[in-house]
Amino acid sequence: MGSLEAAVNRAIIYSDPPTSATQIVELPIEKPGPGQVLVRLFYSGVCHTDLGFCSNSFGLPNPAPKGQVGGHEGVGEVVEQGPGVTTPAIGAKVGVKYAADACLNCDNCLVGGETSCPSVKVSGYYTPGTFQQYVVSSATYLTPIPDGIDLAGAGPLMCGGITVYTALKRAGTRFGDWVLVSGAGGGLGHLAIQYAKAIGAQVIALDHGSKKSFCEELGADAFVDFTKFETDEELKEEVWKISKSGVKTVLCCVSGNRAYEQSMDFLGFRGTLVCLGVPPAGGLGASLASRVNAMIMSELTIFAIKSGNRQDAKECLDIAARGLVKTHYKLRGMDELTAIFHEMEEGTISGRVVIDLR
Amino acid sequence: MGSLEAAVNRAIIYSDPPTSATQIVELPIEKPGPGQVLVRLFYSGVCHTDLGFCSNSFGLPNPAPKGQVGGHEGVGEVVEQGPGVTTPAIGAKVGVKYAADACLNCDNCLVGGETSCPSVKVSGYYTPGTFQQYVVSSATYLTPIPDGIDLAGAGPLMCGGITVYTALKRAGTRFGDWVLVSGAGGGLGHLAIQYAKAIGAQVIALDHGSKKSFCEELGADAFVDFTKFETDEELKEEVWKISKSGVKTVLCCVSGNRAYEQSMDFLGFRGTLVCLGVPPAGGLGASLASRVNAMIMSELTIFAIKSGNRQDAKECLDIAARGLVKTHYKLRGMDELTAIFHEMEEGTISGRVVIDLR
Amino acid sequence: MGSLEAAVNRAIIYSDPPTSATQIVELPIEKPGPGQVLVRLFYSGVCHTDLGFCSNSFGLPNPAPKGQVGGHEGVGEVVEQGPGVTTPAIGAKVGVKYAADACLNCDNCLVGGETSCPSVKVSGYYTPGTFQQYVVSSATYLTPIPDGIDLAGAGPLMCGGITVYTALKRAGTRFGDWVLVSGAGGGLGHLAIQYAKAIGAQVIALDHGSKKSFCEELGADAFVDFTKFETDEELKEEVWKISKSGVKTVLCCVSGNRAYEQSMDFLGFRGTLVCLGVPPAGGLGASLASRVNAMIMSELTIFAIKSGNRQDAKECLDIAARGLVKTHYKLRGMDELTAIFHEMEEGTISGRVVIDLR
Amino acid sequence: MGSLEAAVNRAIIYSDPPTSATQIVELPIEKPGPGQVLVRLFYSGVCHTDLGFCSNSFGLPNPAPKGQVGGHEGVGEVVEQGPGVTTPAIGAKVGVKYAADACLNCDNCLVGGETSCPSVKVSGYYTPGTFQQYVVSSATYLTPIPDGIDLAGAGPLMCGGITVYTALKRAGTRFGDWVLVSGAGGGLGHLAIQYAKAIGAQVIALDHGSKKSFCEELGADAFVDFTKFETDEELKEEVWKISKSGVKTVLCCVSGNRAYEQSMDFLGFRGTLVCLGVPPAGGLGASLASRVNAMIMSELTIFAIKSGNRQDAKECLDIAARGLVKTHYKLRGMDELTAIFHEMEEGTISGRVVIDLR
Repeated sequence: MGSLEAAVNRAIIYSDPPTSATQIVELPIEKPGPGQVLVRLFYSGVCHTDLGFCSNSFGLPNPAPKGQVGGHEGVGEVVEQGPGVTTPAIGAKVGVKYAADACLNCDNCLVGGETSCPSVKVSGYYTPGTFQQYVVSSATYLTPIPDGIDLAGAGPLMCGGITVYTALKRAGTRFGDWVLVSGAGGGLGHLAIQYAKAIGAQVIALDHGSKKSFCEELGADAFVDFTKFETDEELKEEVWKISKSGVKTVLCCVSGNRAYEQSMDFLGFRGTLVCLGVPPAGGLGASLASRVNAMIMSELTIFAIKSGNRQDAKECLDIAARGLVKTHYKLRGMDELTAIFHEMEEGTISGRVVIDLR
Repeated sequence: MGSLEAAVNRAIIYSDPPTSATQIVELPIEKPGPGQVLVRLFYSGVCHTDLGFCSNSFGLPNPAPKGQVGGHEGVGEVVEQGPGVTTPAIGAKVGVKYAADACLNCDNCLVGGETSCPSVKVSGYYTPGTFQQYVVSSATYLTPIPDGIDLAGAGPLMCGGITVYTALKRAGTRFGDWVLVSGAGGGLGHLAIQYAKAIGAQVIALDHGSKKSFCEELGADAFVDFTKFETDEELKEEVWKISKSGVKTVLCCVSGNRAYEQSMDFLGFRGTLVCLGVPPAGGLGASLASRVNAMIMSELTIFAIKSGNRQDAKECLDIAARGLVKTHYKLRGMDELTAIFHEMEEGTISGRVVIDLR
Repeated sequence: MGSLEAAVNRAIIYSDPPTSATQIVELPIEKPGPGQVLVRLFYSGVCHTDLGFCSNSFGLPNPAPKGQVGGHEGVGEVVEQGPGVTTPAIGAKVGVKYAADACLNCDNCLVGGETSCPSVKVSGYYTPGTFQQYVVSSATYLTPIPDGIDLAGAGPLMCGGITVYTALKRAGTRFGDWVLVSGAGGGLGHLAIQYAKAIGAQVIALDHGSKKSFCEELGADAFVDFTKFETDEELKEEVWKISKSGVKTVLCCVSGNRAYEQSMDFLGFRGTLVCLGVPPAGGLGASLASRVNAMIMSELTIFAIKSGNRQDAKECLDIAARGLVKTHYKLRGMDELTAIFHEMEEGTISGRVVIDLR
Repeated sequence: MGSLEAAVNRAIIYSDPPTSATQIVELPIEKPGPGQVLVRLFYSGVCHTDLGFCSNSFGLPNPAPKGQVGGHEGVGEVVEQGPGVTTPAIGAKVGVKYAADACLNCDNCLVGGETSCPSVKVSGYYTPGTFQQYVVSSATYLTPIPDGIDLAGAGPLMCGGITVYTALKRAGTRFGDWVLVSGAGGGLGHLAIQYAKAIGAQVIALDHGSKKSFCEELGADAFVDFTKFETDEELKEEVWKISKSGVKTVLCCVSGNRAYEQSMDFLGFRGTLVCLGVPPAGGLGASLASRVNAMIMSELTIFAIKSGNRQDAKECLDIAARGLVKTHYKLRGMDELTAIFHEMEEGTISGRVVIDLR
């Protein structure tokens, strides 16, 4: 494990955006200011949003700058407290989220919309992220990691886990409800299956047939291989056959137009589609829209979230600490990030990838 | 006022669907069966959905049959009780809604989704409606009309009023919230302004400039004339200027593509668009859909409702009975329905039209 | 199994109220009227409220009349439909609840408060109940019994199960919350443990030590034997030690003063006490009241419910049908009711008693 | 108005607790630390809780120390920012609440229970309060005062206003509901009338007849003089006559046993009693408790709150800034606090008292 005394902070930077080229460099270890702590990071999950920031597939007018350290699913240990900080303690295990900091005092923060705080600092975008060994963080904004969680697996919970858990919570999903997870074998999806089961829902996992046994092991009550259906109508019929009267919640964890189109079809009366997969710039066509009549007939809801707040994070981790959710990940080296980004673009990753920063 | 003894039931039928031709005929007065009452109708509002059923602009595979009596905003008085019925009493003032009857026992009814009951009877579609002097109705499903309400004005509350009130209720609109009503001077819109004000919201009325003074008299805090803006961007800016941080709720009471497109722009953080205007078959283009990214960034919600249930109806009428909402309508003759449908198609009606059935 | 053709309805009547004397008699089999069905009952649970009605321990000014047939946890099969009834079908398995019928149209019914409908008919009080082989019931108000449930065990779900499930639902208990069940080994309590576990809560079972292994088999995470503590303070400490910061919900399933007193002590910040055990007339002393200061300091809530409505009943049975809740009961003969009442008074019953009416 | 340069901080201290003796002294003006600001206070409301702390009528084991500066309803202006603070700006008008600071990060704070944060600092108890000209405060925890509010009147909103508003919010009171305010003419009560009206409720004001015209001017729909009824039963009948079916919410703003006893009587089906008046130590007798049977029959709720959080404070002030609520107060001198405490003990104050600190 890296040592603080060595005063070396190995970090992965975006070396040539908007390509997905990355490079390992050594950066100075910063000192925590008032209200801050220095965290020795051990692991960082890799999220599609990292790829989006690096390659600017989002089409942002202000993409992440060259040389930025990406990442927002970090887990590590507090090694130094800034002036005035007493908690978290030295040695405490903590997580760094998508939102590295928020003011906690604006209109959005006051209603729990911390990730939409106008002065939010986004890890790995304009604020150095978690693809490095040391990061300075707001003491208040870090997430305490409960005992008994696999630390590497906790990485992907910091964004993916919080997001799917919050989606279920805000959708009002209840025990017994049918939940369909689109992209069920992926990074978000495989966590979504488990969180839905943890709160007592019944789950239909939708993905390519190669993910079937993976999804079933995670607890999915039914698996639907979307490649097996000639038409969207047949796919819809299969989902309605399983759920009897359509599903209550669809978590759309993929970003393609067709997936969003199909998602609407699965919903029964007063069903809710939660948009989680971020479509590439210019994407997502007409289909969602053409369904206003259908929405009225079935009184449907569509909503979208970015991620969760500190309370959502706490609840998400508590569920995992009770053993109800386990991240499935491959631990890989810091020098593999560019390769990981390529695999993401090709859609060949099952579960989540975590980078070993030790 | 018509007399029961005369045994004549003047009714307006759809004489040549899918044209908007109508004809006044004399029909027998039916006897109420067990659980039913006979209602002498005095007034019936005319709703866009009546036009939709008559002309089948909805593109329904099973349009309203030739010779049907339309209408679903009826107000009258109980004149005869079927076997076993004790309430409502003879002489009680009652309203007939979009849903003429529902089973009250299915999965949808049990959660308040009576208008989506699989065995719902829709007034004026496959069940004879309120454009007639006498109608037989389910005793349980009628809405008691509280004292002190103008009976003719209560007609449009039975569908339009309930729908906009329920939209605000299910959107979770609270006192102080900014609500934008699109199509503010129309049948739904002018009620929406008043219900939003009644629950303490602040209202932006959006419509053609000719509706300005009407909307302001109804209590709108601001009026925006959409014809005055060259681009959607400028229109958006005006709404954001008034509301400071975008509106919390948009009630889209019109059915055009562009109105739906623009509606998304007005929403601030965690804002909600409620779809009320039923688009014509094949309508509503790409725009709603292309905003998934925007929905995620602002954590927006879109939902749709058909209308409300019996509890919603009761609350809606209670507000009106307290003098907080007044329907603005023109009272017109039974022989004018076809003309009214034409005016609806041309969009020249302010407020609502009520047919005098006395 | 009794046969309809035999035209014999064996029934247990309260033969000498307010004593707990009962007697088996033969009554005529009634014909179902419009909107009604005739149900051949197979089983009926016995609830403390039956004892309360029979012996008038509630001190009601209008006690159940002499000769009344008690019982409100009945399960059977539809054998005849009254005029106009098409559902439930002949042969359908159905349950009879505390509320035998409600108007479904009053202020209370419209908000789901069916058991508080001013014209509610209470099974086994002024409406003949389920301690008989045949009962005529409202077709709408019966609860369909899903396939796969043990029919005898379903009896106690019709009141006890619905009540504890509704208590948890209305208390807003969520997965992960700590729930304490006072009287955990009893009729209500043993169902409460299981429903709390089914929705993902963590459960502390509180009862006499003799119920320990029973409660643990039902899934309780911890058992507390109240007889082991010299003072209420020590008992409180034990509960706080287990739950770390006090429990979120207490279901008080017993009716004694001291149990209610202690219940307040167990609640953590914003905790909720649900009053389920009906105290005897004149009972329940000062203690709950003297805690207003404590309630303010911890922002506590106390609420009470009678039982649930038809939707609550459906959800309650769905959970049981998924195998998550099993009633523990002893099946006993119709001639044992008086003995059962005595055992209730002595508090010697574990789980629930079901009378075999076949 | 006092000047900063003068370097004098006139303050009122509790000079001989637990008597209500107070004394004006000159204290040094402290420097704001990191995260803090210095506020020049202009006004402070006087709350019953101040009297409770000073005279220890609460019977606290750790009463406010001798020499403490009381007060927790302060309004003033930021005159100096501590290191790192950028907001609120110099010159910003701000309010100091019951909770002077909270960690914003513990279990309670994360769910909005800031006043119950284990490390909360309570103004005027163990943290110097607002009965002084200068106070150092947490920058994050101050409440911004919107433009257009009378600054002296805003004082009592900082505790009394927030508390009654939060009570209505957490009780789920909706437009049209009947709300009864017990102690309607007092400091809390006169604000409660106005907040209830602002959210559209109908209000019954209950107090001594001398407060009748005051309450009616504030908007109460009905006034009930409790001195006019010989028995509690007659009083109850009057309230039920006005509200037709009992009230939905009772805000008990007084602390006597009898008031709490009577409050339960006023509640209709599923009504809620909110405990706001803090009873003296040892007080509040048996009556609340003896009603468990009644609570079950009517499915009643009792809950208690301390005060609200920062979001509640914001909403409370926004309503006042829209002109819907005005504090009625008498502006009095710093040397009158002991006299004010005596008047409070005698119950002779209408509305609220504000101390002029300029």
